[in-house]
Amino acid sequence: MSIQIPRGTQDLLPGQTEIWQYIEKTAREICLRYQYKEIRTPIFEHTELFLRGVGDTTDIVQKEMYSFQDRGERNLTLRPEGTASVVRSYIENKMFGWANQPVKLYYIGPMFRYERPQAGRFRQFVQFGIEALGSKDPGIDAEVLSLAMSLYKELGLKKLKLVINSLGDKESRMAHRNALIEHFQPRIGEFCGDCQNRLEKNPLRILDCKKDHDHELMKTAPSIIEYLNDESRVYFDKVKQHLTDLEIDFVEDPTLVRGLDYYNHTAFEIMSDAEGFGAITTLCGGGRYNGLSEELGGPETPGIGFALSIERLIAALQAENIELPIKKGIDCYLVSLGEAAKDYNVKLAHQMRSAGITVEKDYQDRKVKAQFKSADRLEARYVATLGDDELANDKINVKFMETGEQVQLELATFVEQFKKLQA
Amino acid sequence: MSIQIPRGTQDLLPGQTEIWQYIEKTAREICLRYQYKEIRTPIFEHTELFLRGVGDTTDIVQKEMYSFQDRGERNLTLRPEGTASVVRSYIENKMFGWANQPVKLYYIGPMFRYERPQAGRFRQFVQFGIEALGSKDPGIDAEVLSLAMSLYKELGLKKLKLVINSLGDKESRMAHRNALIEHFQPRIGEFCGDCQNRLEKNPLRILDCKKDHDHELMKTAPSIIEYLNDESRVYFDKVKQHLTDLEIDFVEDPTLVRGLDYYNHTAFEIMSDAEGFGAITTLCGGGRYNGLSEELGGPETPGIGFALSIERLIAALQAENIELPIKKGIDCYLVSLGEAAKDYNVKLAHQMRSAGITVEKDYQDRKVKAQFKSADRLEARYVATLGDDELANDKINVKFMETGEQVQLELATFVEQFKKLQA
Repeated sequence: MSIQIPRGTQDLLPGQTEIWQYIEKTAREICLRYQYKEIRTPIFEHTELFLRGVGDTTDIVQKEMYSFQDRGERNLTLRPEGTASVVRSYIENKMFGWANQPVKLYYIGPMFRYERPQAGRFRQFVQFGIEALGSKDPGIDAEVLSLAMSLYKELGLKKLKLVINSLGDKESRMAHRNALIEHFQPRIGEFCGDCQNRLEKNPLRILDCKKDHDHELMKTAPSIIEYLNDESRVYFDKVKQHLTDLEIDFVEDPTLVRGLDYYNHTAFEIMSDAEGFGAITTLCGGGRYNGLSEELGGPETPGIGFALSIERLIAALQAENIELPIKKGIDCYLVSLGEAAKDYNVKLAHQMRSAGITVEKDYQDRKVKAQFKSADRLEARYVATLGDDELANDKINVKFMETGEQVQLELATFVEQFKKLQA
Repeated sequence: MSIQIPRGTQDLLPGQTEIWQYIEKTAREICLRYQYKEIRTPIFEHTELFLRGVGDTTDIVQKEMYSFQDRGERNLTLRPEGTASVVRSYIENKMFGWANQPVKLYYIGPMFRYERPQAGRFRQFVQFGIEALGSKDPGIDAEVLSLAMSLYKELGLKKLKLVINSLGDKESRMAHRNALIEHFQPRIGEFCGDCQNRLEKNPLRILDCKKDHDHELMKTAPSIIEYLNDESRVYFDKVKQHLTDLEIDFVEDPTLVRGLDYYNHTAFEIMSDAEGFGAITTLCGGGRYNGLSEELGGPETPGIGFALSIERLIAALQAENIELPIKKGIDCYLVSLGEAAKDYNVKLAHQMRSAGITVEKDYQDRKVKAQFKSADRLEARYVATLGDDELANDKINVKFMETGEQVQLELATFVEQFKKLQA
């Protein structure tokens, strides 16, 4: 019996991986322009990192982590998101002492959450994210936001909606927290068990509950915006001013909370409002997390970042019928006729590839006609045919497939001549 | 207290990741030329895949796997190598029915083995590998080998040693197996427990034992080469002829076995013989694995591939003092003088980046002198300075750092003019 792929995961095959490569290349190029540098952290971390860095009241930590013990009895967890690992690395590698501040990092890699698989939701998925650590300039909030928007726009997405909110600083959050407790306390019995737990631990997360979403107290809950102190309000106004200057459209949503515990000040989501995109419309989420570094044992460090799922980005491209400009076809297909020609073409393919030419040949001992069919299927721009006769005369026949034009070239200098043909 | 990275894993930081990007980009380009297409399989698989696909007598399966149960009580394992997953996907996605045969695939990604960490050996490491499934043409053996060599050579490595062997077909292996049992049986008591187990299960792996490496019976053990039947010998001769045609130097080593159970016919390793490279000199290993597909429940399918570690490739580059041609520096650094200019530069940076220009600016409210210092450190080719005065007059000053030459440009059309300056 054959063995299946684990539930909730997927194989990306040729035809799909080219799309991923194109998106990742675009993301890397944009990060270069913005001067975010790549960091690669391990696939697993000590479980404690996520308990402290993601927050133990979150669904991720409570229900969705792949945790296990290694052979040395360490408690490890496959990373469910990227920020905690990046901040762990920031502290461990003392990046706060680096000459260039803020430290601007990006990552692209798989994340793991044990969720119920559904359309567009996988247990292993890939996130692209950036983090800017060490600056509390509202300009960097705008930069982080604009980088995410640039990626989507450069890939061709048009139907985007940027939603922003401010969660305020510690003082503002505390005032809001107290108001939330006061608001929900009298009727908390009508809410789910998770929400009852959240009331004391983190009442803000009640607003994010999927089960109690329609409870009437949700609509009338006190908004963080009313509790922002002056400093938080000035900060938020400046971020919005920058976005306006950058001509990035946005809407404010005072109910935007974000699933992770550590956000403060700027919070944002980018959604697709393309028709038929499906229920999960959030493409990207991010925000400011001043305080996370201290939480993980590091120095006081402001930080802001976002993470976006490549799977959902691709779904959004499909919803908008966008075809990425991925180059197709090959430069040359080598057709062999006879045993000696077949052997020679092994060498010729090698020489051409070493010279930078994209080449394919037959490895199945097929007849000439079938070889030409392969050439067609691979969209070969040229087909070079070598028979034992040509080989004896040091010649090779080349056909330019677009026009049907044919030439005979010297075999000895074929690679050179072929490069001239192409130019 | 701060949380550390898990033992045996590493963070790759800016300064290092550029090297990885360069290598991966080169590998992808070469695969394109050779027409190997990317496949991405999950980080974990059902444990059974590796029991059957790697072989239950191997060290990997017996001692080194990261295995765990998920929340649905599935037995999963972080992949210790790439071939079993690729063949699983080949079968599950019925690639044997694809129009283009053989199916030529490559992968780049992390693998996991619980080994004792040491210089150049990590518990999470990255492998680049290729697999050609569906052809038993000796020409494809040569192609697979040459692709690995091309990557090393194009990156600049010179001190390479290619070692090849043939493990023969089933009949040859059986004859050799019987000879090995006969050879070791009388004195098997002098060997380690692992070897005693291997004697009946897979005596070939005794030759690969690290503990009993120096036992006198090792040197006199019957060589596979003496037991190759005619078909296997002809196949091996043809592979060697192709390598000679391709001008790829090699040495034959009849003791070359490879650690995994599923190899037959062509087996090879590429080593570095650079001085001071360290104890682990194998950079790349591969070979033919006709029969693996059946083992995993698929149709009879010939296959060949290799895997190489990027970590060791980088160590080899260092041992040969090779510096990769990685582009440094940025196009422009924006210096601000005054509050209004600082705000304006947020917008200007955005506009320039949107136009494809690599730009950095200050986010720390630093003085002009410190901003110029940053520009130097980032190797900015141009520095553009904007003060509140210039801003009032719609001007901006630009300095070409190589010559010290300065110009004043119109602010309104700055991005356009800057692109002309660069050209």
